[in-house]
Amino acid sequence: MDIKQYMQTLGEQARVASRALSRAGTHTKNQALQAIATEIRKAADTLKAENALDLAAGEEKGLDAALLDRLALTDDRIEGMAEGLEQIAALPDPIGEISDMNYRPSGIQLGKMRVPLGVIGIIYESRPNVTADAAGLCLKSGNATILRGGSEAMHSNQAIAACIQRGLKSVGLPETAVQVVETTDRAAVGELITMPDYVDVIVPRGGKGLIERISNDARVPVIKHLDGICHVYIDAEADLVMAADIAFNAKCHRYGVCNAMETLLVDATVANDILPVLAARYEAEGVELRGCDQSRKILPNINAATDEDWATEYLAPILSIRVVDGLDAAMDHITEYSSGHTETIVTENYAHSRRFLAEVDSSSVMVNASTRFADGFEYGLGAEIGISTDKIHARGPVGLEGLTSQKWIVLGTGQTRS
Amino acid sequence: MDIKQYMQTLGEQARVASRALSRAGTHTKNQALQAIATEIRKAADTLKAENALDLAAGEEKGLDAALLDRLALTDDRIEGMAEGLEQIAALPDPIGEISDMNYRPSGIQLGKMRVPLGVIGIIYESRPNVTADAAGLCLKSGNATILRGGSEAMHSNQAIAACIQRGLKSVGLPETAVQVVETTDRAAVGELITMPDYVDVIVPRGGKGLIERISNDARVPVIKHLDGICHVYIDAEADLVMAADIAFNAKCHRYGVCNAMETLLVDATVANDILPVLAARYEAEGVELRGCDQSRKILPNINAATDEDWATEYLAPILSIRVVDGLDAAMDHITEYSSGHTETIVTENYAHSRRFLAEVDSSSVMVNASTRFADGFEYGLGAEIGISTDKIHARGPVGLEGLTSQKWIVLGTGQTRS
Repeated sequence: MDIKQYMQTLGEQARVASRALSRAGTHTKNQALQAIATEIRKAADTLKAENALDLAAGEEKGLDAALLDRLALTDDRIEGMAEGLEQIAALPDPIGEISDMNYRPSGIQLGKMRVPLGVIGIIYESRPNVTADAAGLCLKSGNATILRGGSEAMHSNQAIAACIQRGLKSVGLPETAVQVVETTDRAAVGELITMPDYVDVIVPRGGKGLIERISNDARVPVIKHLDGICHVYIDAEADLVMAADIAFNAKCHRYGVCNAMETLLVDATVANDILPVLAARYEAEGVELRGCDQSRKILPNINAATDEDWATEYLAPILSIRVVDGLDAAMDHITEYSSGHTETIVTENYAHSRRFLAEVDSSSVMVNASTRFADGFEYGLGAEIGISTDKIHARGPVGLEGLTSQKWIVLGTGQTRS
Repeated sequence: MDIKQYMQTLGEQARVASRALSRAGTHTKNQALQAIATEIRKAADTLKAENALDLAAGEEKGLDAALLDRLALTDDRIEGMAEGLEQIAALPDPIGEISDMNYRPSGIQLGKMRVPLGVIGIIYESRPNVTADAAGLCLKSGNATILRGGSEAMHSNQAIAACIQRGLKSVGLPETAVQVVETTDRAAVGELITMPDYVDVIVPRGGKGLIERISNDARVPVIKHLDGICHVYIDAEADLVMAADIAFNAKCHRYGVCNAMETLLVDATVANDILPVLAARYEAEGVELRGCDQSRKILPNINAATDEDWATEYLAPILSIRVVDGLDAAMDHITEYSSGHTETIVTENYAHSRRFLAEVDSSSVMVNASTRFADGFEYGLGAEIGISTDKIHARGPVGLEGLTSQKWIVLGTGQTRS
């Protein structure tokens, strides 16, 4: 197979399909989503059989247990995909929304209309449910999609793609609106990210290594999510009961997620009061603590944190702790080590809350709330295609709106420029 | 000089300065803009003397008259730079704007805050006034800037940079908030567009060749403006008097601008009525017409348009004309040949106006108004750093808001996730 030619063909087909999708009405798109959900439920046995082929090949290749777990399609996960699509159908349609229509002195009325981006390329690792989630979000936002999943999930992804295409066809939308790349050749990724004529944006979902490689080589814009090194800062004027609850929740609610706290910053004036209490709670949960010199004077039994700790996304029951001299020192630490995902201050001081909100340069900045709220569902986006740590285009949780653009529209009555 | 090391140093300094700028209040930024305007007026003689060096070198190098004209700093242009900065000072400050603060079921209040992008790299050709304009827009939007102007304008740009830095210093802002690259070595551009740690976005201003080269090589996002192949479509149900006025204005108001019409599309049912009238007006202005076969049956004296004509941005008194069979044929032509800048339909038909607005995929889509309105000043943005033909981030005229991002902010009262 000539990979370049193959990917160009997918690109051309996606570009044509994107025009039909951009014109599809809300009702048609919702019908398609519901039809795909139905097809997925009906095909549960086929999906599990195809998935078994992937799992067997994965075991033979010696994939680790965590990877095999992510790869597995159970009845629950199949139902989850179908429900996810129905939830997307229930979301408001962002496309065609007209806003800010105001008259200009020339007499023209000027505003904005929300439109699809066009063709979205999605590159992800071996979680087959992403195939349905991503296709659903792109479809609802009027975009054509080219999906390139992990090679370990090839059979599962093709089976899901078949359901999607039957669903699209049943409502009269082009089957090429969602295309799954049918080759495991890595060159296909290289082509997908360098076809600006056919692909408008790339969304990579997976580990930091994958995302960095794609960002470096891409010739089209990338909505990327690197790591989540999130901080909670307990201010001198924090309510310490609230602070302990937030710091505990931000670390222990779930460990393997990007919005979990990785470093706790504590103002020196309250460190003696709060650290022993918090340390006992963390230790009861089995969280390993690593501290700066000052925190180890208060918690002598914990290990020393190194510079590398401050720059690490543990995604594990490990927490680094640093005692700081006030708000500025806390923000300096965040400026140096944060990945720009989510940071929280716990304080009852008005001026400190205002400064933290204004000056911390992360996609979500919070006062008196757990970092765990930085999430598309908690933010009411309904679903998310990822969390962007970029500043351009979409920032933070990216829902349907992040997959759209706005064009200017002008309504005149014959105006000409003089 | 080690260019790589030099550009890294500029980048590091810009990154540090960007933090100070992002925290600068509206009053301080406005004072800086006014102080720079004052410095530019005071330095008029120096500016003209330095500019004379550039002009003399340019003449020696044999630059053409148009280039030399763009390079020249006259008293009017110097006053224009100063007034431009004062106008930017008078614009509302976009930074810190909080919007959409709504309560979520969890009890957190969620919204967005507008923030600077960080560091903006601007690459432009030999128009020295861009140095002041671009620096002013970036300053007002809280961004640090690295400016790389054309080598022919080196003396002029350095002299303007000195004024900017005196102005910044006088209000206590870091002089490194605006830096002009002091080498004519082309390698400096290569470095500037591949320093994602120090530069958040690149805005190239210049010819299509420059912009394509930069887009291909950049490792940071580029807000780019390629060409403006704009269309006016005269629908079967157009008011023909209005249509003639709009089509005339869109072509003849100014020729060398990106929002001028390059191709006129006319519905076949009205072509006989309107083309002779319009052709007479164009010919009186000295506009060369090039037509499709059908239009040449009505206007036998005009040249034939080739496929290349449909894809050309003339920026000159030349117009291509095509007779089309209805709205769909017009939109098909636009889909194939438009550069996605600006298109207008002239019609009194409600359904046609709705379809054209929804289905044409350009940064500005208009009904019954001249394409010439697609402009930052006409849109009320106050000033523009460029017109984006991209769909990601900024689309169409890019003013202060296009140089900003929005972060999520969360105000809680101790919420944790359960």
